[in-house]
Amino acid sequence: MADNVESGVLKEYEKLKNLFQDYTQINNTISILHNDQQISMSPGSAPDRAEQMGALSKIAHRLINAPEIKDLLEKVEAAPSESFSKEDQRNIKLMRKIVAEQNISEDLSTAISNICNEGWEKHTKLRDAGDWSQMKDWIQHSVDTMREVGRDKKERLGFASAYEALLDTFNTGMKAGHVAQELGKMEKSLPGLIREAAQKQKEEKPPVAFSGTFPKEQQEELCRRVLEAMGFDFNRGRLDFISGHPSSGGTSDDTRLTTFYDEKNFFKALIAAIHEGGHGIYNQTLPREWRYQPAGEPLGMDLHESQSRIMEVQAAMTPEFFEYLEIQARDIFNRPDDPALSAENMRKLRQTVAPSFIRVYADEITYSAHIILRHKLESALIEGTLTAEDLPQAWNDGMKNLLGITPPDHSQGCMQDVHWPSGAIGYFPAYTLGDMGAAQFFAAACKDRPEIRSELKTGNFKPLQEWLEENVHSKGSLLTTEEIFVQATGKKLGADDYLNHLSERYLGKPYTAPVSAPILPQQKTPEIN
Amino acid sequence: MADNVESGVLKEYEKLKNLFQDYTQINNTISILHNDQQISMSPGSAPDRAEQMGALSKIAHRLINAPEIKDLLEKVEAAPSESFSKEDQRNIKLMRKIVAEQNISEDLSTAISNICNEGWEKHTKLRDAGDWSQMKDWIQHSVDTMREVGRDKKERLGFASAYEALLDTFNTGMKAGHVAQELGKMEKSLPGLIREAAQKQKEEKPPVAFSGTFPKEQQEELCRRVLEAMGFDFNRGRLDFISGHPSSGGTSDDTRLTTFYDEKNFFKALIAAIHEGGHGIYNQTLPREWRYQPAGEPLGMDLHESQSRIMEVQAAMTPEFFEYLEIQARDIFNRPDDPALSAENMRKLRQTVAPSFIRVYADEITYSAHIILRHKLESALIEGTLTAEDLPQAWNDGMKNLLGITPPDHSQGCMQDVHWPSGAIGYFPAYTLGDMGAAQFFAAACKDRPEIRSELKTGNFKPLQEWLEENVHSKGSLLTTEEIFVQATGKKLGADDYLNHLSERYLGKPYTAPVSAPILPQQKTPEIN
Repeated sequence: MADNVESGVLKEYEKLKNLFQDYTQINNTISILHNDQQISMSPGSAPDRAEQMGALSKIAHRLINAPEIKDLLEKVEAAPSESFSKEDQRNIKLMRKIVAEQNISEDLSTAISNICNEGWEKHTKLRDAGDWSQMKDWIQHSVDTMREVGRDKKERLGFASAYEALLDTFNTGMKAGHVAQELGKMEKSLPGLIREAAQKQKEEKPPVAFSGTFPKEQQEELCRRVLEAMGFDFNRGRLDFISGHPSSGGTSDDTRLTTFYDEKNFFKALIAAIHEGGHGIYNQTLPREWRYQPAGEPLGMDLHESQSRIMEVQAAMTPEFFEYLEIQARDIFNRPDDPALSAENMRKLRQTVAPSFIRVYADEITYSAHIILRHKLESALIEGTLTAEDLPQAWNDGMKNLLGITPPDHSQGCMQDVHWPSGAIGYFPAYTLGDMGAAQFFAAACKDRPEIRSELKTGNFKPLQEWLEENVHSKGSLLTTEEIFVQATGKKLGADDYLNHLSERYLGKPYTAPVSAPILPQQKTPEIN
Repeated sequence: MADNVESGVLKEYEKLKNLFQDYTQINNTISILHNDQQISMSPGSAPDRAEQMGALSKIAHRLINAPEIKDLLEKVEAAPSESFSKEDQRNIKLMRKIVAEQNISEDLSTAISNICNEGWEKHTKLRDAGDWSQMKDWIQHSVDTMREVGRDKKERLGFASAYEALLDTFNTGMKAGHVAQELGKMEKSLPGLIREAAQKQKEEKPPVAFSGTFPKEQQEELCRRVLEAMGFDFNRGRLDFISGHPSSGGTSDDTRLTTFYDEKNFFKALIAAIHEGGHGIYNQTLPREWRYQPAGEPLGMDLHESQSRIMEVQAAMTPEFFEYLEIQARDIFNRPDDPALSAENMRKLRQTVAPSFIRVYADEITYSAHIILRHKLESALIEGTLTAEDLPQAWNDGMKNLLGITPPDHSQGCMQDVHWPSGAIGYFPAYTLGDMGAAQFFAAACKDRPEIRSELKTGNFKPLQEWLEENVHSKGSLLTTEEIFVQATGKKLGADDYLNHLSERYLGKPYTAPVSAPILPQQKTPEIN
């Protein structure tokens, strides 16, 4: 009899797994269609594609909200925990999280998809026209809607605040207080670090700029070689050069990367390809036995970003990597004597510190300042202590304080990103959490496998790749982000290793926390350029 | 009160339309994924893609078999017919057809998808290995399964035979008796026509063969120019050169064509592009107000094939078209004096009659012989009067009778096509019905718009395109195939115009039916080559 009950519950769990597999397959399909849209689709097909994507999202939403799923899940959750392995228990927990997240009112769900669908186009149009008046209203509409989403999630799922609930959508399990604390550490130290690094670079001989053109086909070959060295499997994925924004998507076994390019500067394509390649390799090495199940999916965007940035800014900005890159670049571009292509010169070019208005063009060290500002502003917007009306002033004050510069217009200021207009509030911290995570993983990996850096000289990423697969990728979502960090690095995700890394790389010395009080947004920071 | 009932039924119909729209969107997605598989996907992603396609098919199947659809459909069907416009009534009828077709037992449904999914790979493998022993068992398995499918459909939906039920899957509304009758007319006349045409060509000066190579990029440009002239909208579609088999797919607003190519012979790419372009233009000009609804979808494969063949063999084999092609080809390939590129020479090359073993490489006039044979054999297989065991003998007898040749092995004989091993029994007649339809439409169009042919000299397909859009494409599935033919040409689809066209083109005289008795498969036909 007990056996029968148990086998009944196992059957119900099998059914649940099949339904979640269908859910994953629809999401995978949407991701492949996104890639097709970037690399193949003709422009006049856009309205048809929007309808198609909308229909697939609706079908996925309906699938996950079906009474059948709720019934099965309740039965499975009611069974004694011994009925399932630890991994199955985790999988069931993640199923519940997906169901709970998707279980919002029809009205709210429609409001979110409208903001998401319309936001991208509206953003591009209004930003390019510099139309702040309309953008302001749209951002406020997005903020008000997402606040409601956050509050609803908070009440149902017990988050500390509406903002934490939104944060959790992109950064699974991340606490708002912890994020504020670690970004606070960064905020305290970053202006000083940036100032000192910029000053140090001023005193050095400047690097030689790239000259002439680097043909697209040769850039494609370079990107391909580097990605292959990193461990990206082109037999189960591809890389395309496009005119739009770089991305990674597709599925674990069909991973689609895109990069943009500039004929005058091959770093543009290469860096984006390495970044997206980091995301792609994470996807390709997720645990195969959990494929299509929640436990086999990647964890939050913070962890995902740590895997793109560990390649892009940790491994591929080491002097060892530039030795490998010099050999490849000289060979492919057939420039044996070009001084710009020496390892040391490319390293200097890549590490130039220069505060700028646009986040996506920021250098490694100033990038976090952009995120710190956005995190402050978006949490204030959700809390209601800041309105879209007052955003430009708060933005410009923050830029002045953190980077010492003031944007000449809103298009280069608070209108630049698509995140807020498209409802992706709570996303930005993932970038800097990713940078922290990348530094923390890289430090731990190099400690465990001391050959990691020296092997990069010949483009051998295997030791790093193996460490990442063992400690991060193969975990999928079977562990929490915190468990992954504690098991792999001995501590929770935090800012310390990242600050230390920045100090070592840009100042050549270990990090020491500043003794001064934290810089407040109202306070004037010294000029740094 | 009556108003309330009526508005209730209209609401139910709206719900139904939404569900069928979702169903169409899943099928559209599958079609885009098929194209991605051909033009973008890496080989190692194939197993993942198979799972994805399987999941989407299952989701579509589940959607159409949901009790909700059945309930709504019954309510809508029970309403007085005045509640709906004539077009809506037709749409409801087509909804019922889809539901009835998909309403088969889980076991049979699984058996069909297994045959379809495994059949393609098995066919390529066994054909290339010449393994008839295994192929024979697989074909018999496919035949037995499809016979069961046909019987089930026949009983539920009232077809004359299991074979007619299968025929209807691909050729909506087509009666088995009518197909047998029209193909019988062809069978009676074709061997004589072929013999006479081949004899006539023997007496003429042979055409000059193509020489040298035609670079791929230039062939792409030629195909693009011709497709644009035909009216294919590249803003809502694309054409790719691939190594696999040509196809057309995608959606009405995102139409995907592929073609293969041969550097030595630009006809290979061009002819397939024109053929697929004909399919594509039909898709692109379906009635927009019925998009995503059953009534807005194309009718059967027979009608679809008539739209590819009206371009490929009717319009694009006229002397007028070759005048246009000469100008384009000389310009693009930069061969002002190449005698092979004269209009007259290209026409002769294209119209060379030569019986061959492989259907897909057959010339216009012998092509139908391949179909006549397959139609006879597949109906006998389904009726059970022929087994796979006896297929090779029956095949070779038929080839001898119809074309006067005997395949050297089974790979070039009864193993060549993927249709039977993949369960697509009842499909083959669509090719010749398509040829008949193309001839019938073209004759009617040229009568209505006498400028059609002369305008082709400058690549102006507009008069033809307008006639097709008005008389065929814009009807979608709002009319039956029979209604479309009767309204557009004054008579049912039949062989007469096609036979007349073949006689005019290859013998230069109107068709006259042979006085001799029909040639039976047992009878020996004279040698024709």
